[in-house]
Amino acid sequence: MKSTVNPDALGECWSRLRDQRPRVHCITNTVVQGFTANVLLAAGAVPSMTTDPEEIRSFVERSDALLVNLGTLDADRRTAIAVAVESVASRGRRFVLDPVFIDVAAPRLAFAKTLLAGRPGIVRGNAAELAALVGAQPTPASAAANSTVLALSAPVDCVLAPDHEIFIANGHPYAALVTGAGCALSALMAALLAVEPDAALAAATGFAAFGIAQERAAEVSRGPGTFATHLLDALHAVSPADLTGKAKLS
Amino acid sequence: MKSTVNPDALGECWSRLRDQRPRVHCITNTVVQGFTANVLLAAGAVPSMTTDPEEIRSFVERSDALLVNLGTLDADRRTAIAVAVESVASRGRRFVLDPVFIDVAAPRLAFAKTLLAGRPGIVRGNAAELAALVGAQPTPASAAANSTVLALSAPVDCVLAPDHEIFIANGHPYAALVTGAGCALSALMAALLAVEPDAALAAATGFAAFGIAQERAAEVSRGPGTFATHLLDALHAVSPADLTGKAKLS
Amino acid sequence: MKSTVNPDALGECWSRLRDQRPRVHCITNTVVQGFTANVLLAAGAVPSMTTDPEEIRSFVERSDALLVNLGTLDADRRTAIAVAVESVASRGRRFVLDPVFIDVAAPRLAFAKTLLAGRPGIVRGNAAELAALVGAQPTPASAAANSTVLALSAPVDCVLAPDHEIFIANGHPYAALVTGAGCALSALMAALLAVEPDAALAAATGFAAFGIAQERAAEVSRGPGTFATHLLDALHAVSPADLTGKAKLS
Repeated sequence: MKSTVNPDALGECWSRLRDQRPRVHCITNTVVQGFTANVLLAAGAVPSMTTDPEEIRSFVERSDALLVNLGTLDADRRTAIAVAVESVASRGRRFVLDPVFIDVAAPRLAFAKTLLAGRPGIVRGNAAELAALVGAQPTPASAAANSTVLALSAPVDCVLAPDHEIFIANGHPYAALVTGAGCALSALMAALLAVEPDAALAAATGFAAFGIAQERAAEVSRGPGTFATHLLDALHAVSPADLTGKAKLS
Repeated sequence: MKSTVNPDALGECWSRLRDQRPRVHCITNTVVQGFTANVLLAAGAVPSMTTDPEEIRSFVERSDALLVNLGTLDADRRTAIAVAVESVASRGRRFVLDPVFIDVAAPRLAFAKTLLAGRPGIVRGNAAELAALVGAQPTPASAAANSTVLALSAPVDCVLAPDHEIFIANGHPYAALVTGAGCALSALMAALLAVEPDAALAAATGFAAFGIAQERAAEVSRGPGTFATHLLDALHAVSPADLTGKAKLS
Repeated sequence: MKSTVNPDALGECWSRLRDQRPRVHCITNTVVQGFTANVLLAAGAVPSMTTDPEEIRSFVERSDALLVNLGTLDADRRTAIAVAVESVASRGRRFVLDPVFIDVAAPRLAFAKTLLAGRPGIVRGNAAELAALVGAQPTPASAAANSTVLALSAPVDCVLAPDHEIFIANGHPYAALVTGAGCALSALMAALLAVEPDAALAAATGFAAFGIAQERAAEVSRGPGTFATHLLDALHAVSPADLTGKAKLS
């Protein structure tokens, strides 16, 4: 299927992120909190990260979008997620679900399914995670059945919207050696969801921007350590024109 | 108001930090623990980081200063903070309070006020946080009223002591794109509080050393990622003579 | 005592790590989770990090080795560790114990002693930690008495096996300024324990590989920040031939 996305639209979406500097509250795992915050800051968004059930509402209420990442899930995070998702929905805002490792732990999968029922704007994960969540290989039909957009991280990334799909071929293999690269991308998609009504476009813009930054970072890196550092520099430097000119869509 | 601080005093304070290698226990948020520990190590201090209520006393009792940072506050951290602050006071040591985001969550603000009553040596925060804490724009009078020193992070940083103020114009805008830069600076001030009786001088030395390191890091950085890495190198290399010669005081 | 280890054996052990890509579940402290995961990824292993008592069994059951690090110990971690150690033992897998700061907190020491009774494949720590655990200066006899291998981090690292000891003189002092360098090394030893039956050889290979990577990283670093970044690059580049040719054994 030919891409239905005009590359100019990605540039415009990225431009709005830079202009509006959305606040993104992240309920995410303790392994990647620092890197995730740095990715959001490099992209122009403003992160907050508390996971305490008593404080979460105050933070989500002032945010423009929410990330729910299921890594290092615990009792407090479960409670906080429930409060946060309800709060964000009541204000007409949206959330990204990152169903980390739901293919490993059955209770985590069950919890993710309840979150899916709350209609996340985007669900981003790898093939095993998305298949576990929707019960089959992810397709536009499974996106439609769940009223969401599925963002599938793979050698060629894919956005599965209810009525179309978009393939994005940007990126570099070093990203697989940087812990939290996928988690941080989900946070970036949440930031884009705050500025772009079309969730599929937001997801595609996230894949493309992060992938273009990876390509540039790899040019000046000698391994996964320098790559992670340069990735933040490169993401900070990505321009709307880069999105329009360098996104590899199909 | 002209600065009442002799630049030589900052160099002497920094020199004592390097010589004495104080132990700093940090109760801080999970987002920035790693970066904070690396900042303390680069500066010559020795960090510890547990937040468990049952273990906290053993760690604080062997420390030369304490950091209390209210990010990712939770029930365990609240309990641990109460134990730690009492322990540090009973031994004649001091603590730095970093009232992260108290302008966002009312219970966190109330908790911060109880900590302020315990007379932290230094409170470091941004304008919104310090205003929320002292109930007005921070001034030397509000520092006096609370028997503390207020360290205000701003484009030009300011130390508000009960009877004078010190402006420090070092730093680089990239620091705003590094998560935990402010939190780590608060930890650095705690290290300096362990070696310098004059809390205002300790705070000014922290601002200047961290700001000088930022300026040097920016010279060899291409964005916020390389900046964060080079900031640790630069802080490690800051000498007493740098403090005396490069601090921009007024 | 002359080393009883043939350098070729270290290269073969490292080669198996690269080929088999073992899964290592890490129960470790929140300060170092990110860096630890990146070290494992750079070395070719696959990390997971949850510490939740309800989820831990699912993660450990699919892992090839376990790391138990006692930093930022809390009630959940204690429960999770007990479940994880039992699970790993029941499957004939092994764990590495990193008894962080057990010389500081008495309850943590008592807990570490119960874990020692569970016969970790390797215990890695500094001199104070290992002495606290075995009740005397660590020696081959104390390793024998506890049916384990003691991996002692020191200016010259030492592996104490029940019937021999191996000294490894690789490394660089900057590593002491990188938070979590020791913790990450323990995780690396767990990865090696998954592919090498001889625990002493696994420990020696870990010391040598990490030390060789440090030496290379130092050549291109200007301080502890760039060192930490280059250390990941260098570890990723370490080859079996490097182990055989550059390990400084005695």
